[in-house]
Amino acid sequence: MTKYLIKAMILPMTGPEDFFEQGEIAIEGDRIVWVGERGSHPVDFKPDRVLDLQNDVVMPGLINTHTHAAMTLLRGYADDMPLMPWLEKKVWPFEARMTPEDMYWGSLLALCEMIRSGTTTMVDMYMYEDETAQAVLEAGTRAVLSRGMVGFDLQAAEKALQENIDLFNNYQGAGEGRLQIMFGPHAPYTCPGEFLQTVKQEADKLQAGIHIHVAETKAELATIRERYGTTPVRWLEEQGLFGGRIIAAHSVYLDDEELAIYKKYEVGVAHNAESNMKLNSGTAPIVKMLKMGIPVGLGTDGACSNNDLDMFGEMRSASLQQKLVGSPEDLPAYEVLELATNGGAKITGFKDIGKLAPGYKADLISLNFKQAHFYPRFSIPSHLVYCARGSDVRTVMVDGKILMENYHLTTLDEEQICAEVEKRAKRIALEV
Amino acid sequence: MTKYLIKAMILPMTGPEDFFEQGEIAIEGDRIVWVGERGSHPVDFKPDRVLDLQNDVVMPGLINTHTHAAMTLLRGYADDMPLMPWLEKKVWPFEARMTPEDMYWGSLLALCEMIRSGTTTMVDMYMYEDETAQAVLEAGTRAVLSRGMVGFDLQAAEKALQENIDLFNNYQGAGEGRLQIMFGPHAPYTCPGEFLQTVKQEADKLQAGIHIHVAETKAELATIRERYGTTPVRWLEEQGLFGGRIIAAHSVYLDDEELAIYKKYEVGVAHNAESNMKLNSGTAPIVKMLKMGIPVGLGTDGACSNNDLDMFGEMRSASLQQKLVGSPEDLPAYEVLELATNGGAKITGFKDIGKLAPGYKADLISLNFKQAHFYPRFSIPSHLVYCARGSDVRTVMVDGKILMENYHLTTLDEEQICAEVEKRAKRIALEV
Repeated sequence: MTKYLIKAMILPMTGPEDFFEQGEIAIEGDRIVWVGERGSHPVDFKPDRVLDLQNDVVMPGLINTHTHAAMTLLRGYADDMPLMPWLEKKVWPFEARMTPEDMYWGSLLALCEMIRSGTTTMVDMYMYEDETAQAVLEAGTRAVLSRGMVGFDLQAAEKALQENIDLFNNYQGAGEGRLQIMFGPHAPYTCPGEFLQTVKQEADKLQAGIHIHVAETKAELATIRERYGTTPVRWLEEQGLFGGRIIAAHSVYLDDEELAIYKKYEVGVAHNAESNMKLNSGTAPIVKMLKMGIPVGLGTDGACSNNDLDMFGEMRSASLQQKLVGSPEDLPAYEVLELATNGGAKITGFKDIGKLAPGYKADLISLNFKQAHFYPRFSIPSHLVYCARGSDVRTVMVDGKILMENYHLTTLDEEQICAEVEKRAKRIALEV
Repeated sequence: MTKYLIKAMILPMTGPEDFFEQGEIAIEGDRIVWVGERGSHPVDFKPDRVLDLQNDVVMPGLINTHTHAAMTLLRGYADDMPLMPWLEKKVWPFEARMTPEDMYWGSLLALCEMIRSGTTTMVDMYMYEDETAQAVLEAGTRAVLSRGMVGFDLQAAEKALQENIDLFNNYQGAGEGRLQIMFGPHAPYTCPGEFLQTVKQEADKLQAGIHIHVAETKAELATIRERYGTTPVRWLEEQGLFGGRIIAAHSVYLDDEELAIYKKYEVGVAHNAESNMKLNSGTAPIVKMLKMGIPVGLGTDGACSNNDLDMFGEMRSASLQQKLVGSPEDLPAYEVLELATNGGAKITGFKDIGKLAPGYKADLISLNFKQAHFYPRFSIPSHLVYCARGSDVRTVMVDGKILMENYHLTTLDEEQICAEVEKRAKRIALEV
C-alpha cells in the first residue's frame, strides 16, 4: 500500500473557486487523505514516494459515461455516411465477424487511448463484455459494464440476458470494486416491451442499474410513434423501466413533459455531443436538463462515430454545440468540467470519484501545463475545456495505482495492442 | 542549400486516391523535386540528410486563413460571454493597453503553437503588424499579413492605412517570399464606404489583396440593414470592394444572390467553425459554397474566441458543424483536408503550397501515427480529420528548412516566449 505525496497545481472540482496554485495531495492506498496548500499535510503522513508535478495541473480522472470500447476495431472503417446505410452495410456486417478475442484486443486499444487521454472510468455497452471486463482488470481502470441486448429474436435475447446476468455474477465488484455491472437493453426501438420488463425484473433482483440508448434520432421517434403511438420516454415509463439507477444515453429528443419524467425518476443522461453531430442526430437539451437538476455526464460513444475517445475534445465540443444552438453563455467551462467529473460520477453510482477530497478514491490525472497553448494562465478551467487535448495528460492514477507516468503506460503493452488490432481489424474487413 | 530525402507514409493532397504507404520525398533548397514510392527518386539526387519518418504520415503544412496571432495574450481572459459585452468590457480595453512589444511576444507564442500543431502559413490581421512580421521572419513560417483598420475616426483610419502601406513597402516578399501583405479594413460595420473605397484604391495600386470580416453575426446584418438598407455583401459590392484578391472571413450570413456575387468575383472565404460556434455567430453555408466552386479555406480566428490555434481541431469541428446542421455526408474527411491545405493556398495567393508535388514549396509536416488513436489504419484522411490532434505533429518544414524536428522547435525559444507572454498578459490585465 503505497503512500504518495503529489506536488502540483490542483483543481479539485469541489467548487468553482477551489484551486491550489501550489498544492499537494496525500494518498494512502486507494484513497485521498489530504488536499491543500504545499506543505500543509498532516505531520504524521510519511510518503513512500513524492511525485513532483509542479508544471502540471492535477484534476479528477475523467468519466466517459457512454461508449462501446471494442468499436475501436471499426475506427475509420466507415465515415461520412447516413445512419442507416452506415449501420446496415458497414457496422453490423463487421460486428457479426468479430470474435470474443477481437473484442478483448479492441477493448485494450480503447483503454490505451483512454488512459493516455485522462479517462479513468468508462461506462461501456457491447457484446462479449466478459472480454472487456478482463481488459479493464488488466488496464487497472474503473468501469461500468453492460451486455448490449437486442430483443427481437426471442432466443438470442434470452441468451444475451443470461450473459448479462452471468457478467454480473462474475464481475460485480471485481478489481477491488473497480468493476460495476449494469444491464444493457439496447434501445426502445430494438427491444419489445415484454423483454424490457423482463430485463428490469432481473436488474432489480440484483440491484443493478440499466444502461440504454434513448431518443437518439428522429428516425427512432418516428418508429416508436408508428409502433406504439407515443414517444420513447413515455413508452419506457409505461414499461416500468424507470425508478432505480438508469443511464439514458443520447436523450436528444425530449419534450418538457419527458424532461419532467427524467427529473421525477432521476434518470441519468449520457450526453454524446461529437457522435450526435457526426451522425446528424441532433442537439440534446443539456442546458435545460441542467437547469432542472437532471444528472448529466459526457460520453464519446464508440470510435466508429467519433472517432477518438478523447474526453477533452468531447468537453470542448459539448460546450461549442450548446453555444451554437443556444447562447455563448451556455455550458461555461467549469460546468463542462463538472459534467466530465462529478456529473459522470453521479450517474455511474460510484459515490467516491469525480472530486479530489479526503475520503475520495485516488482517481486523478495530471496535465503538462508548460506548453505554448496553455499560456497565459488566466483561467485553468477555460484552458482545460477550450485548449487542452488528451495528449497533454502526463500522469494517470486509478485507485491509488499509477497507470501512466510521464507519458509511459505502466499496465498495457501499447505497441503489441496496436499491432494486434491492426491485424484483426484488417482480417475482419476482408471477411465482410 | 540542404538536400533532404524523407522516407514516410505520404498523403500528397494531389487527389483523393493518392497515397504512398511506403513513400519518399526529395527536396532541394526550398522546393520539392520528387514524390513517389520508396527508392524511386532520380539516381542523380544525392541527399545531404535522410529523414527516416516511417512511422509518420507526411502531408502539406496546414494553412490558417484567418487569425489574429497576438490575441494569444487574451487566451482565457474572457469566455462564455455574449459578443458585445465580451468586446466592449473585456477585449477592447485589454487591446488598448497592448504595446508593440506585447504584440511581438504574443505573435511569437502563436507561432510556437502553430508550428507545434502543423500550421505552416497563417493569414493574420491585427494592430502593430510590423511586430508580427518580425516574429514570422524569426519563426521561419509563411504568412499573409494585414493591418486591421477601423474607419470611423478619420484621423486614426488614415494613420492605420498609412501603416498598412508601410507594412507593404517594408515586408512584401520578405523572407525569400515567405511574407505577403494584404490590406485589412476590419468589416463593413466598422468602415464607412468612402474609407473602403480609399483602401481599395491603395490596394489596387500595389496589386495587394484585401482581408476583411464579412457577415459574421446577425447583429452585423441588422446594423448594415439599418444604416444602408441592404446586406453586407451587396453593400461591399456597391462600394467596389470586390474584384482582385479578397479574403472574406466568416461569411456566415449570405443568401443565394450574395453567394452568386462571391462566385462572380472569386471571393475567397475564410471559414472559422469553432469561433462561430463559441460566439454563437452561426453556421456558414460551406457546403453550398463548395458546390458552387467558391474558394474556401479554414481559420482558427484569434485565441480569445477559440481558444487554441490547432487546425486539426478546426478541421474536425468544421466537419462536425456542417454535419450537425446538414447531413452526415457533408464535408467528408478528404474535402476538409483540402480546405486546410490547397483550399487555403488558393485564397492566399501562394500558388506553390498546399500540395506535395515536384515544383511545390517544401512546406510539409509529419504526424506520428504509431499511437493508439490512429489504429486500425483503415483510412488516413479519416484519421487526420476525426482523430488527429495538433500534438501528433512531429516534424515541420517550411521553405525547405526544418522548424520542428522530433517535437523540438529549432527557431523559437518556447520557454522564454511562454514566460514573457505570461508576464505581459498579467501586466495588461492589471492595467485594465
